[in-house]
Amino acid sequence: MKKIKLKPAELNRHKSIHSNCGVFGIYNNPDASILTYYGLHALQHRGQEAAGIVTSEYDEKNDKYKFNIHKDHGLVLSVFSDDKILTNVLKGNSAIGHTRYSTTGSGDKRNNIQPFKVNFKGGNLALSHNGNLTNTKYLREKLQNEGTLFQTSTDSELILHLIAKSKESKLEDKLLEAFSQVIGAFSICILTDDKLFAIRDPYGVRPLAFGKLNDSFVFASETCAFDIINAEYIRDVMPGEMIVIDRESIKTGSEKSYIIGTAEKYKHCIFEYIYFSRPDSSVFEEKVDKVRRKIGKNLAIESPAPGKDTPEDKKTVVINVPDSSNTATLGYFNEIVKTNKDARHEIGLIRSHYVGRTFIQPGQDKRKMKVKTKFNTVKGVLENRKVVIVDDSIVRGTTSKLLVELIQKAEPKEVHLKISSPPVISPCYYGMDFPTANELIANQNDQNTEEIGKHLGVTSLAYLSKEKLMESVPYKHEKTDYCTACFTKNYPISIEGLDDMNKNEFDD
Amino acid sequence: MKKIKLKPAELNRHKSIHSNCGVFGIYNNPDASILTYYGLHALQHRGQEAAGIVTSEYDEKNDKYKFNIHKDHGLVLSVFSDDKILTNVLKGNSAIGHTRYSTTGSGDKRNNIQPFKVNFKGGNLALSHNGNLTNTKYLREKLQNEGTLFQTSTDSELILHLIAKSKESKLEDKLLEAFSQVIGAFSICILTDDKLFAIRDPYGVRPLAFGKLNDSFVFASETCAFDIINAEYIRDVMPGEMIVIDRESIKTGSEKSYIIGTAEKYKHCIFEYIYFSRPDSSVFEEKVDKVRRKIGKNLAIESPAPGKDTPEDKKTVVINVPDSSNTATLGYFNEIVKTNKDARHEIGLIRSHYVGRTFIQPGQDKRKMKVKTKFNTVKGVLENRKVVIVDDSIVRGTTSKLLVELIQKAEPKEVHLKISSPPVISPCYYGMDFPTANELIANQNDQNTEEIGKHLGVTSLAYLSKEKLMESVPYKHEKTDYCTACFTKNYPISIEGLDDMNKNEFDD
Amino acid sequence: MKKIKLKPAELNRHKSIHSNCGVFGIYNNPDASILTYYGLHALQHRGQEAAGIVTSEYDEKNDKYKFNIHKDHGLVLSVFSDDKILTNVLKGNSAIGHTRYSTTGSGDKRNNIQPFKVNFKGGNLALSHNGNLTNTKYLREKLQNEGTLFQTSTDSELILHLIAKSKESKLEDKLLEAFSQVIGAFSICILTDDKLFAIRDPYGVRPLAFGKLNDSFVFASETCAFDIINAEYIRDVMPGEMIVIDRESIKTGSEKSYIIGTAEKYKHCIFEYIYFSRPDSSVFEEKVDKVRRKIGKNLAIESPAPGKDTPEDKKTVVINVPDSSNTATLGYFNEIVKTNKDARHEIGLIRSHYVGRTFIQPGQDKRKMKVKTKFNTVKGVLENRKVVIVDDSIVRGTTSKLLVELIQKAEPKEVHLKISSPPVISPCYYGMDFPTANELIANQNDQNTEEIGKHLGVTSLAYLSKEKLMESVPYKHEKTDYCTACFTKNYPISIEGLDDMNKNEFDD
Amino acid sequence: MKKIKLKPAELNRHKSIHSNCGVFGIYNNPDASILTYYGLHALQHRGQEAAGIVTSEYDEKNDKYKFNIHKDHGLVLSVFSDDKILTNVLKGNSAIGHTRYSTTGSGDKRNNIQPFKVNFKGGNLALSHNGNLTNTKYLREKLQNEGTLFQTSTDSELILHLIAKSKESKLEDKLLEAFSQVIGAFSICILTDDKLFAIRDPYGVRPLAFGKLNDSFVFASETCAFDIINAEYIRDVMPGEMIVIDRESIKTGSEKSYIIGTAEKYKHCIFEYIYFSRPDSSVFEEKVDKVRRKIGKNLAIESPAPGKDTPEDKKTVVINVPDSSNTATLGYFNEIVKTNKDARHEIGLIRSHYVGRTFIQPGQDKRKMKVKTKFNTVKGVLENRKVVIVDDSIVRGTTSKLLVELIQKAEPKEVHLKISSPPVISPCYYGMDFPTANELIANQNDQNTEEIGKHLGVTSLAYLSKEKLMESVPYKHEKTDYCTACFTKNYPISIEGLDDMNKNEFDD
Repeated sequence: MKKIKLKPAELNRHKSIHSNCGVFGIYNNPDASILTYYGLHALQHRGQEAAGIVTSEYDEKNDKYKFNIHKDHGLVLSVFSDDKILTNVLKGNSAIGHTRYSTTGSGDKRNNIQPFKVNFKGGNLALSHNGNLTNTKYLREKLQNEGTLFQTSTDSELILHLIAKSKESKLEDKLLEAFSQVIGAFSICILTDDKLFAIRDPYGVRPLAFGKLNDSFVFASETCAFDIINAEYIRDVMPGEMIVIDRESIKTGSEKSYIIGTAEKYKHCIFEYIYFSRPDSSVFEEKVDKVRRKIGKNLAIESPAPGKDTPEDKKTVVINVPDSSNTATLGYFNEIVKTNKDARHEIGLIRSHYVGRTFIQPGQDKRKMKVKTKFNTVKGVLENRKVVIVDDSIVRGTTSKLLVELIQKAEPKEVHLKISSPPVISPCYYGMDFPTANELIANQNDQNTEEIGKHLGVTSLAYLSKEKLMESVPYKHEKTDYCTACFTKNYPISIEGLDDMNKNEFDD
Repeated sequence: MKKIKLKPAELNRHKSIHSNCGVFGIYNNPDASILTYYGLHALQHRGQEAAGIVTSEYDEKNDKYKFNIHKDHGLVLSVFSDDKILTNVLKGNSAIGHTRYSTTGSGDKRNNIQPFKVNFKGGNLALSHNGNLTNTKYLREKLQNEGTLFQTSTDSELILHLIAKSKESKLEDKLLEAFSQVIGAFSICILTDDKLFAIRDPYGVRPLAFGKLNDSFVFASETCAFDIINAEYIRDVMPGEMIVIDRESIKTGSEKSYIIGTAEKYKHCIFEYIYFSRPDSSVFEEKVDKVRRKIGKNLAIESPAPGKDTPEDKKTVVINVPDSSNTATLGYFNEIVKTNKDARHEIGLIRSHYVGRTFIQPGQDKRKMKVKTKFNTVKGVLENRKVVIVDDSIVRGTTSKLLVELIQKAEPKEVHLKISSPPVISPCYYGMDFPTANELIANQNDQNTEEIGKHLGVTSLAYLSKEKLMESVPYKHEKTDYCTACFTKNYPISIEGLDDMNKNEFDD
Repeated sequence: MKKIKLKPAELNRHKSIHSNCGVFGIYNNPDASILTYYGLHALQHRGQEAAGIVTSEYDEKNDKYKFNIHKDHGLVLSVFSDDKILTNVLKGNSAIGHTRYSTTGSGDKRNNIQPFKVNFKGGNLALSHNGNLTNTKYLREKLQNEGTLFQTSTDSELILHLIAKSKESKLEDKLLEAFSQVIGAFSICILTDDKLFAIRDPYGVRPLAFGKLNDSFVFASETCAFDIINAEYIRDVMPGEMIVIDRESIKTGSEKSYIIGTAEKYKHCIFEYIYFSRPDSSVFEEKVDKVRRKIGKNLAIESPAPGKDTPEDKKTVVINVPDSSNTATLGYFNEIVKTNKDARHEIGLIRSHYVGRTFIQPGQDKRKMKVKTKFNTVKGVLENRKVVIVDDSIVRGTTSKLLVELIQKAEPKEVHLKISSPPVISPCYYGMDFPTANELIANQNDQNTEEIGKHLGVTSLAYLSKEKLMESVPYKHEKTDYCTACFTKNYPISIEGLDDMNKNEFDD
Repeated sequence: MKKIKLKPAELNRHKSIHSNCGVFGIYNNPDASILTYYGLHALQHRGQEAAGIVTSEYDEKNDKYKFNIHKDHGLVLSVFSDDKILTNVLKGNSAIGHTRYSTTGSGDKRNNIQPFKVNFKGGNLALSHNGNLTNTKYLREKLQNEGTLFQTSTDSELILHLIAKSKESKLEDKLLEAFSQVIGAFSICILTDDKLFAIRDPYGVRPLAFGKLNDSFVFASETCAFDIINAEYIRDVMPGEMIVIDRESIKTGSEKSYIIGTAEKYKHCIFEYIYFSRPDSSVFEEKVDKVRRKIGKNLAIESPAPGKDTPEDKKTVVINVPDSSNTATLGYFNEIVKTNKDARHEIGLIRSHYVGRTFIQPGQDKRKMKVKTKFNTVKGVLENRKVVIVDDSIVRGTTSKLLVELIQKAEPKEVHLKISSPPVISPCYYGMDFPTANELIANQNDQNTEEIGKHLGVTSLAYLSKEKLMESVPYKHEKTDYCTACFTKNYPISIEGLDDMNKNEFDD
């Protein structure tokens, strides 16, 4: 019998958007691999198709460092299901880890699983990377012309070559030289024999948090990875910053920090607040839960629930799409209820968390069946009601349409769909895996909300405006602190130099 | 590497209670196996350790029936991960299926996976069973003395022997004779060469619904299994009823129905409303969602949220334990908010649905780590607030204690735990797998709510009273329609004749 | 990726004949399960598709016996690959084991894997069976009419029912009663809580040896299973004998023995000497190696190697088909060389023991490719020579034909095929899995040796005559000591009462 | 349950010697991957722990080449058990393959599985390598100092870097430049987008054959890989030769050929004739079967079977150790029988080809049990006889000692062990994986044959002399055509520059 191939990306998300990665690093802890395991577990939602850990183990007898690695396709819990891997193989006091959204299947793609581990003149080197570089084409060609061979099609290998090729003698300077050459979005942990580096691009596109666990230092894409191991969140790795942890720094408790490239204006990915990050995390130094509820609130202000004319009308039912819009729906409802005390927040959709393969009968639609195995309606809640569904975004529109269809079967009076983000009109080249522009429903309908709503089968459709979205998020500097390219086509970092191989990676 | 052993019972539930089974049956449909697959998928929460399907295939050439079977340990999606099993192996127009909470591991226990398929003088016979018989000791000894050999330790095999041994000539009468001899709780589907039977014990302890899908008839433990295949819910199989579907009955659209034993007073398992059944199902001919919200409402009436004295106090935060107390919390909150407009329903706990193996570091508590991999708090919601947690039940108290500990780390002002059921003081012998009486925390503390609360670390603890619970559920006849033995030690069906083997089954 | 399904039957044999089973039993040894594992390993050639072990473990605390079981599809080494199964699960001082040729795949067939373990009024009972009953139809119907249900289609379950139904009070008498009702070929080990039984049908069709290992007693289909554990061969279980080992007998060193049914004339399966048994075993109280070489010798006497006229002719090359005809070829060659000193025994065929799936290119013959992955010729040995191939039997002729084709490519002058058995013309109903009569090449050509040879593409073909075969085997009583039905259609045990289910078992 | 980890190296060999690899290449065949699969299957004995195939697929639409790859730990039949891999993934008209003896287990070592596939300025490049370089230390350091990073510890990656770094513009010249820098033993197939290269070191240490299949060209380590696909053996790739196959060459039927480095004297690995290569192959342009039998013959001349004084003595029994000494034993016996007509070649050892995990009982020797699961004696053949065992070599002596012990249990009169090679006294650095010098039994006893024989427990022990070995092998040029370092410590190719990493590789 064929072994089941869980499509884990489907397990907890119902969108055709995929984050690229979660990264984690820890220095100076005898349980480095176990803590990394838990950290990756908490970051599972950022990448569900592969996971890996590299540890640096000091071999006292030979006064040398040994790098241990284990990585594979699958969820974190599956890749590390054998506890002997954590305790017997992944020995050592420092570790980095990675969860990845990636392509599965062919033995080849296995090479792309992170962390990467290589050997160069400076010893061992391992890297975990979240984000996407945008001048890869130029860099790859340049390196190939110099006689460099590539074993993968990843940005990460490219960075490693740049480090190995640096003429600088100090490791820190090698890294600074390498990172001064790359353009794009990156939040990176690098482990060497006796140091741990955390680096973030000058725009701060992807998050990277810095924490402390007793005498150990930790880094993670989101702070929920700190909570699970009882680590304390200190601050973010700043955009353009490189933090270096070594034995000496641990003694003093201070940390060395460097600046990469010219410090640019911040360009945080606003989608982290809308959808990616877990509500219990802090990203960009703000609690996601708080921002996401403010987004919900602003959505309610812009497009309140319908009809308050008749007593019957007033009993509008607001429902969430579990679990992705739970928090935004709370924000939405708490605002609505201020003026309509009869409105109710209800559970109108039940979600099954057991989702696997979908078998279709002849003449049946596969995606329809998939939605049905994931969601069921609570008819008593919806029937004959004015129903407001809050969802976080519409990408292709396929799932939304099927979800609306499902809800319509419960015979609500009206269905009003409120989206807690503006229309998605353009792909992301900084680390999210969106469909191409043509596939985006907002493009197919020229952002005509009415038409899209008609297509989806709802009574009304409303998106959050860009303005209100920008009002919902916190600012360090100014309104331009965020990348909103997927809503505006306004790409803040040049995408001219994108490697074809790099573009294609998402196609498989 | 050792393959991961998902402990699926943990995936979506956080209690040490396990239902025994979900059953499903369909007659006269060319896609019988695929529809059963989907039905079982919807019943996954009723039994997550094994699954199976048997189909009856008519062999035109030989004018004979062939029974096909596939069953194994694992989730439904894993057992049937190879689509060729459904389409090439499980051919035929009728099918029954089963999901089971059972013991894993040893090759022996494999025998206990359902459906059971046997061959007897009347041809092929397969059975799916939810519930537990209570006169097994007597029946087993009687049969063994007659020279019957047993290949399993299950009630189900016992029933099959009784059927095979019946001297009646008509199959229907054989079944009636067999079921007149057994005592206990059972909801059963039986497939024979050309008939499908659905049988329910005279007390109606476990649910069993009857539906229709075009020209096919279907049976399922809960109606959510009808929704997923677009079947229409007709009514319940009545307590003590045996419905027979055959070719003739399908033609006429009518169905033959028999009465098993003396019709007794109803004794529905009240825990189905509290915890087991999905909120989107109807059981005992009432919507679970509706009953569960009424339970929440009554809990609020009995033990409202604390302090409304100061404006600050008023901002009580009500949180659910996802996903099991979602619905009851809604009912609770909607009542509370009537008198305290400042109370808020918030998401205070984030639940990870990726839960697997837990590795412990020396000196760490395994269960603690397990709770941490499952739940994280949203600190901004809880910090410095009076927090009301609504949960459905407390069994051993272990998980509750750890959950409270986790919440306390978020530094709420107070933590009030509201339980939407009375104290659990006695095991169930009718199909739920509770711990023994000694392990139940309510027994350990003589039901002293204050002491239990202190043990759990909450500011206050309140259970729903038995009276209010009884007010929350619907009645066909009278207040005694329900079995409440786990709250009252009042066992409505004799448990004297329980087989030791049967008792032990839960121990492995 | 689909997991590989080794077809182990192919690994070491190249014939379309399959033995039905190997059985093993041991009493009173703390390493019972490990010794059974090794015993089954040595019997692997008798059944390569499934294996199992049952142990009886004494629970001192409760003064009760517990039966442990582990069985699965696959080779012995694969089924018991986890050493924890042998040491932690299969505890106890007594054990029986089984290797089985059976059908794979469907979850259903799993039920047919032995040993069988059941519970009856006398306690636990487990059975390992080699052979085939021939009055199953009658017995099955009789039992079904008495209300017995069947969970498998095996003879073994039938025997177990007969034991459970016996009205005798003593266990020994129950068994005697049961075995007095069955007709056919059987060599059986039965384990009860505190006894081990070894039973052989009155004809002694299949072998069963009795041995001793220090204070333990052992039984096995072939004595090679004794050698691997350093046990000492005592004698065979006699045809019609039932040996009982219990605690008392061990103390005294004596053994209790019973006679089943009327002692019949012996009807040993002569094919055990020709092909099934390992040459290093003793079966029917004679060394297989010795008999098989005598068979080879007689074949040489009847049909010597060709041409001794020219010096060139004399250099006839005799080759074996590894490994099945190795021993017979030796016997053949040692006879030939007496009169032709120039004849040579050579290695003309190299056999690969790595054989798995065969992929075919369009237009290619699958079986041809299979033979090519198994065999290659040593051209230098065959080219331009008169080649004599000694093989043990021809069944369908398919493999022989392809093998000859392969050899012809090495351009020998002539190819003479010598078969160390008479033409196979009739199926076996006593435990061998032959093709149907129609598929047997000897039938398709009316036993016309010349035509068959032409079909196979050889210069000449010769079978061993029945007379010479009978001269090669040892006799206790007289020439009729052997069953030769597959060569003669003369079935010594009635096959009238064969159950259809039983017949079909080989079809899957 | 833990999945079984077949130790396939044990399956067919009983020595602690392992060859490093089998390589295969094919150009211009629509079934390239399937033919490579069969070719690798035939080369399975050269490396049983991992296998892989790379194909070059022409994408007509984009006029580009795509490289497909699949490789994994395991036997060929297991790695490619899913036929979809061969037909759907590994598309393309050219392919190279590899079977590898390598270290298993850790996820890291996976990187070392061949073929290697990389991308460089010239496009795609894949490499299969048999042999071992000896100036790796220097080359690795040089490359690292130039900024090259290494992802594996293999020679093969080193070669690929040298090719990528070459300043030559023509691919052929890049390769020539790269191979002019490496020293050691190598037989290599390289696949580029549209060319196939076969290269052999100037000493011709490891074999590499060149063949033709209709319009396709093929390369393989041994000619048995040609036989299985019906390809025709043309000649060897000559020592120091690089053959290039491209579209043009196919048209003309000619092939381009280059010379690498200075043509040196030949240094064929003599162990290929003694043990490694299959007897049905041609290596170094001579049939292995022929050479190996001559070796056996010379062994007989040097050390004939004992005692011909009494008639009883004369009945000396010569036995082989299946399957590794089958051919040499024939050569030995055919010589012996010339002067002692009463000597007999017998099957004294039966070998089980099912070998897996060995479980030991307390106080038992694991290796002893392993030998017992592999071999059993045929007592009737050995008892009371003078037995001559012919074996190919003694390395550590552990297995030989246990084998002798087993044979002694059959109570032969005398045991004479004849080894068809000289004492092994030194490790191989050219691609065989021998134990270290200290572990070699011939060193432990200063090559004192008598002492070694005593240690092994035989009546007498004899090795083949170096002189007679050299007489047995064919010569192109002169007696120094062979590397005999393992018998003489005379290393013909400098081993000064061996990388530590490279040395260590065999230790894991």
